[in-house]
Amino acid sequence: VLITGGLGFIGSHLAERLVGLGAEVTIVDNLAANCGGNRHNIGTFANRVSVRIADIVESTLLPELIADRDYLFNLAGQTGHLASMEDPFTDFEVNSRAQLAILEACRRQNPNIRIVHASTRQIYGRPEYLPVDERHPLKPIDVNGINKLAGESYHMLYSRVHGLQATALRLTNTIGPRMRVRDARQTFLGVWIRCVLEGVPFEVWEGSQLRDFTYVTDAVDAFVRAATCDAAVGEIFNLGGDCAISLHDLAELLVKTHGGGEYLIRSFPRTSRAIDIGDYYASFDRARSILGWQPATPLDQALSETLGYYRCYLDRYL
Amino acid sequence: VLITGGLGFIGSHLAERLVGLGAEVTIVDNLAANCGGNRHNIGTFANRVSVRIADIVESTLLPELIADRDYLFNLAGQTGHLASMEDPFTDFEVNSRAQLAILEACRRQNPNIRIVHASTRQIYGRPEYLPVDERHPLKPIDVNGINKLAGESYHMLYSRVHGLQATALRLTNTIGPRMRVRDARQTFLGVWIRCVLEGVPFEVWEGSQLRDFTYVTDAVDAFVRAATCDAAVGEIFNLGGDCAISLHDLAELLVKTHGGGEYLIRSFPRTSRAIDIGDYYASFDRARSILGWQPATPLDQALSETLGYYRCYLDRYL
Repeated sequence: VLITGGLGFIGSHLAERLVGLGAEVTIVDNLAANCGGNRHNIGTFANRVSVRIADIVESTLLPELIADRDYLFNLAGQTGHLASMEDPFTDFEVNSRAQLAILEACRRQNPNIRIVHASTRQIYGRPEYLPVDERHPLKPIDVNGINKLAGESYHMLYSRVHGLQATALRLTNTIGPRMRVRDARQTFLGVWIRCVLEGVPFEVWEGSQLRDFTYVTDAVDAFVRAATCDAAVGEIFNLGGDCAISLHDLAELLVKTHGGGEYLIRSFPRTSRAIDIGDYYASFDRARSILGWQPATPLDQALSETLGYYRCYLDRYL
Repeated sequence: VLITGGLGFIGSHLAERLVGLGAEVTIVDNLAANCGGNRHNIGTFANRVSVRIADIVESTLLPELIADRDYLFNLAGQTGHLASMEDPFTDFEVNSRAQLAILEACRRQNPNIRIVHASTRQIYGRPEYLPVDERHPLKPIDVNGINKLAGESYHMLYSRVHGLQATALRLTNTIGPRMRVRDARQTFLGVWIRCVLEGVPFEVWEGSQLRDFTYVTDAVDAFVRAATCDAAVGEIFNLGGDCAISLHDLAELLVKTHGGGEYLIRSFPRTSRAIDIGDYYASFDRARSILGWQPATPLDQALSETLGYYRCYLDRYL
């Protein structure tokens, strides 16, 4: 198995799960400063995986990495929305160009490889109805969404036209141990948790927006199911959470779960307002019926386990 | 005025029109072998335009080219659908990455520039209804469509979020003098016309598919109207033709207009079948109501003028 972005938040959990299942796992990660890669993420099983620190955009490396793999879990990406507006080319390189390079390498070196691609709800843009299912129009409203849509589209095209076996999972906010908490590049909730643990108030922007959250072990379960389900080839699935919750209620739940904490309600900064998607939560009926997947971890438990992890390891993530 | 792809088919007609209107026109074109650039296209007015042979992807050149312009007509592109499948990176560089680079340069160097972008009906994919209007879902089915969609999306995003004044025109098959006739990279009709003039049979694949055609001077009219219409900022418009016609009827019309010619009906090659969009013709109601545009040239006249041009100049396009 090859996992791109395998030192990251979801990638490292997936690597750990696959190692536990007996897979030979190679991780490739460029440890880009603003992405999720962190060597601490594989600390407990580093001796059971191969790690290549490299940029997947370097096409000279790709043929070697992809040859002879049975599975490719394609999770390398830049996830920050505001970051994609400030530095569009970095987002473009990994979310768009690297995806095309990976698929070309698969097509030429290993056309029978099974691929699962980490896509995102960001490609929908502002929901026109809720819950958002996979037929919802794709109208991304930031650079990240445009590039991720191109990346997903290449996967589906190469599956349909070139016969590659690819599945795309459109992730929503994913939370859990090992997520980025330095900033909001993976999810704003990372910053909230850090603030709560550091005893400083966190900021809730507006507060009425609805969101859903997938706990990381549930997301990993979806990746494994997608990779091993024949009916998932060439298909797209939303992931989702066990409930939709307003940011205000989420802030209350976080404070309650931690047993303390303060937050400020403030209005959107202008730059964030321009790319805000409003309310979002996913329908995951399709994943339930075809992959047999549904989120198993209640949100309060997800928060509790995440808080527990960062009480021990916050310093490794600052 | 700056015109990217200005030595090409549509770009050169646009340059000629703008020169006639008294504009100071600079053309930038890389004369890429498989695109539409051809020095013969500006032969009759070469002394009235500035020409820079350069690759717009070279970002070092962009700031200088974009500074102080009032208008940018952004027509550089790779248009071949099959070509985009065989060489996805060339299509990617010009249709996706260069577009982002151009917009970033505009944002930083000249945020008041007025931009008109040449988009394409290819981003719709297989029509779900006819005629296709601008609200039709965007589901491109080849690499070209995916990259052109990203390019258009960047334009609309930079217009909405960064305040650039951009308009996108979704072109359908555009025909006329100066179009590429060596191959089908711009439109299959180029090859048909070349065959008719060379006295060899041309190939009609299937024949029942419906298509629409815009004559090049009508397309140029749309670019000029879009650039000078305040209500067009941040908006998208389909162009179209005066009728929808099956390829079989088009073949008959071409033979009749030329006064002779032969063709073979054959089934699709496999590689083309996989990315064929079926029937397509556009609704241009939006362009009519907001830009006051509609196609003025009947198809038979468009064919007649095109044939007349290539009777004189075919050798310059082989």
